[in-house]
Amino acid sequence: MNIVLLSGGSGKRLWPLSNDIRSKQFIKIFKKEDGTLESMVQRVYGQIREVDPQATVTIATSKSQVSAIHNQLGQDVGICVEPCRRDTFPAIALATAYLHDVKGIPLEESVVVCPVDPYVEEDYFRVVEQLGQQALKGQANLVLMGIQPTYPSEKYGYIIPRTQDPVSEVETFKEKPDAETAQKYIDQGALWNGGVFAYKVGYLLDKAHQLIDFTDYQDLFDKYEKLEKISFDYAVVEKETKIQVMRFAGQWKDLGTWNTLTEAMEDPCIGEGMLNDTCQNVHVINELSVPILCMGLKDVIVSASAEGILVSDKEQSSYIKPFVDKIDQQIMFAEKSWGSFRVLDVEDESLTIKVTLHAGHGMNYHSHQYRDEVWTVIAGEGRTVVDGIEKKVKVGDVITMPAGCRHTIFADTELQLIEVQLGKEISVQDKQKYELER
Amino acid sequence: MNIVLLSGGSGKRLWPLSNDIRSKQFIKIFKKEDGTLESMVQRVYGQIREVDPQATVTIATSKSQVSAIHNQLGQDVGICVEPCRRDTFPAIALATAYLHDVKGIPLEESVVVCPVDPYVEEDYFRVVEQLGQQALKGQANLVLMGIQPTYPSEKYGYIIPRTQDPVSEVETFKEKPDAETAQKYIDQGALWNGGVFAYKVGYLLDKAHQLIDFTDYQDLFDKYEKLEKISFDYAVVEKETKIQVMRFAGQWKDLGTWNTLTEAMEDPCIGEGMLNDTCQNVHVINELSVPILCMGLKDVIVSASAEGILVSDKEQSSYIKPFVDKIDQQIMFAEKSWGSFRVLDVEDESLTIKVTLHAGHGMNYHSHQYRDEVWTVIAGEGRTVVDGIEKKVKVGDVITMPAGCRHTIFADTELQLIEVQLGKEISVQDKQKYELER
Repeated sequence: MNIVLLSGGSGKRLWPLSNDIRSKQFIKIFKKEDGTLESMVQRVYGQIREVDPQATVTIATSKSQVSAIHNQLGQDVGICVEPCRRDTFPAIALATAYLHDVKGIPLEESVVVCPVDPYVEEDYFRVVEQLGQQALKGQANLVLMGIQPTYPSEKYGYIIPRTQDPVSEVETFKEKPDAETAQKYIDQGALWNGGVFAYKVGYLLDKAHQLIDFTDYQDLFDKYEKLEKISFDYAVVEKETKIQVMRFAGQWKDLGTWNTLTEAMEDPCIGEGMLNDTCQNVHVINELSVPILCMGLKDVIVSASAEGILVSDKEQSSYIKPFVDKIDQQIMFAEKSWGSFRVLDVEDESLTIKVTLHAGHGMNYHSHQYRDEVWTVIAGEGRTVVDGIEKKVKVGDVITMPAGCRHTIFADTELQLIEVQLGKEISVQDKQKYELER
Repeated sequence: MNIVLLSGGSGKRLWPLSNDIRSKQFIKIFKKEDGTLESMVQRVYGQIREVDPQATVTIATSKSQVSAIHNQLGQDVGICVEPCRRDTFPAIALATAYLHDVKGIPLEESVVVCPVDPYVEEDYFRVVEQLGQQALKGQANLVLMGIQPTYPSEKYGYIIPRTQDPVSEVETFKEKPDAETAQKYIDQGALWNGGVFAYKVGYLLDKAHQLIDFTDYQDLFDKYEKLEKISFDYAVVEKETKIQVMRFAGQWKDLGTWNTLTEAMEDPCIGEGMLNDTCQNVHVINELSVPILCMGLKDVIVSASAEGILVSDKEQSSYIKPFVDKIDQQIMFAEKSWGSFRVLDVEDESLTIKVTLHAGHGMNYHSHQYRDEVWTVIAGEGRTVVDGIEKKVKVGDVITMPAGCRHTIFADTELQLIEVQLGKEISVQDKQKYELER
């Protein structure tokens, strides 16, 4: 099977664990059989591999997620990077062109597009696989997954099938209704639209060429920024008459809010947390290194990270976005392809951070105009280059870099250092990169 | 007036703001008229000074609180340090001997003893002053304050006065009763025993000499560790027949739990906190530098410090102690006479801390056997001495100190540094102090 996972943008609805640079699909909260934790993207990727070890998995995403995806899934996963956000139709067109032109998938093969973040079991991906097989038959140009509703939700679109067969033609689509209308749809046999659909590569590329003037993947990539923002539903689904829906009646949860996310947690606490006996339906996700003690709470989520602390009634937590939008804050932690950094201390004229470099990785060779820096290596071994001179470094070594000095560090083993930045104008913008002559 | 404030030990009931090394009376949570915050001890000290600018105030406390008291009240306040904890009778005897032998207070003057942490207004200290004047009259050997009860509390002892006059002889004392019995006492005109009492210096020293074999303050101090633990109530009050009680009907609150403490907070948030509209009776005290967002909570206290985070129903918060006892944790922040330190990062073989030195203060001259250290000065100016050699230091200077090297730093202005400790066995015990030859 060829599967495209749409890995959406940064969301604030799971603040403080998700934010401008960290998306919910990378938060490790699901317990594996061996007791370790995995993220949504790791869970979904593993489930696909379990159902079809030969599947070609391509993640359609933005540049900002590439490091996190490689860190969590390894280097082998296919990634189709959108140069910028242009809604779902351009993203799916780009991913399909990538599959055809870069990966060599023939026009007559099928592709299934699926969000990266449903909370499901393997039966879901077996139906995903059947969706692809159904598309191959050519009875319809699009085959959608229709999820058997469990309650009259106002959060989803509905698909009305023509028959109650496992695979049926689509009678019509309905936008997100109110609960009463949703119940009427369900009584008529309607299904939730979970955003999963299959098509043949050739069909989609034809549609893309009709709407966008491009030659191949690279040309589409180069033009991407100039494309109109248009949704796949608007550009394709609403205009298509040959559409089928395939039923799925297994477990399917949308983990977009703290309320639904905590339902999927096996233990009440991730990280250091204590709940007393009088707590009911309380979940703690604690990424800090200090304990959280909860007493006498009911239906509450407590989540703490280097960015902040949320304490919320679970129902109320779905209204979080406008409050988080008000928080204008320095990024305190970030995962990068080369490792990670954590801000330890912020003063008017200094900033202290802890940098972790993965073995074999290094920083860019760079300088700062307005700040001096001091590195103290606290773990590992590596090599620094300062103004062109390379030196081996180990634990306890101190490197001082006045403003203007060009510098970098490579990790030969996993390496950690404390970086103290000193200056009146400390800013992430104050960075000049150079090619390293070696 | 001569007043002795009993400043009790570290309590865990206000964790994470109070802990083994930080007592609740030093937490800054009360808003002053100028908008800044003050602690219980600052508030009480200011109120006494307002009522009687000439008052001799002596704080009876343990060695561990001396730095915090000087930092918060300045150098002029009298402190009578107990060499160890020996309950209230030895503490009051020591403080009274200190007042007579060190401060020269004559035997016929009176002293009022008062806890350091009641939440009161100035009228309370006017009654405290009257207590001292009443003791001078010699009608009784002890004059107690009786607080007009506002509800049948089970938390306090009760005083039954002989008459309903403003000053009356004491008929009898009652131990902490159940609520029903408490109501009966109140119906009989009983008063709360708030632990405030006045006596003449000579009276108390006579009592002390009857029970303890000592010559003067210094002798008592030297013998202190060998003294029997005995309460003032047991040693003196229960055996005394000439006791009066003076009524106080003003505001008096015991801020020993988060529930009562938050009642005294003027604003719902201290530190960075946001409450949405659906929060009711929620208080946030946040000493961290990241925001706390609360949504849909009712009757909840959220308190965050470098030591941990408490999220508790206010009623439930009074049961906190056994849970905090279970938390065995490195001290993450401490206030010292010379400044403060905060732990920024803990790894197996490194520890990174931020040290703040007040102007004019320095560390002890010391060395470590098992760890190297690196200082990076991030604010201020001062002087280091490393293996006997003194150097001026300023922002950006880096000082490296291998294990065994003797070192110290003095702050000429307020000075901050990042200290990285490196070694396989990092421990606070690994410290050898030396005299500095200058």
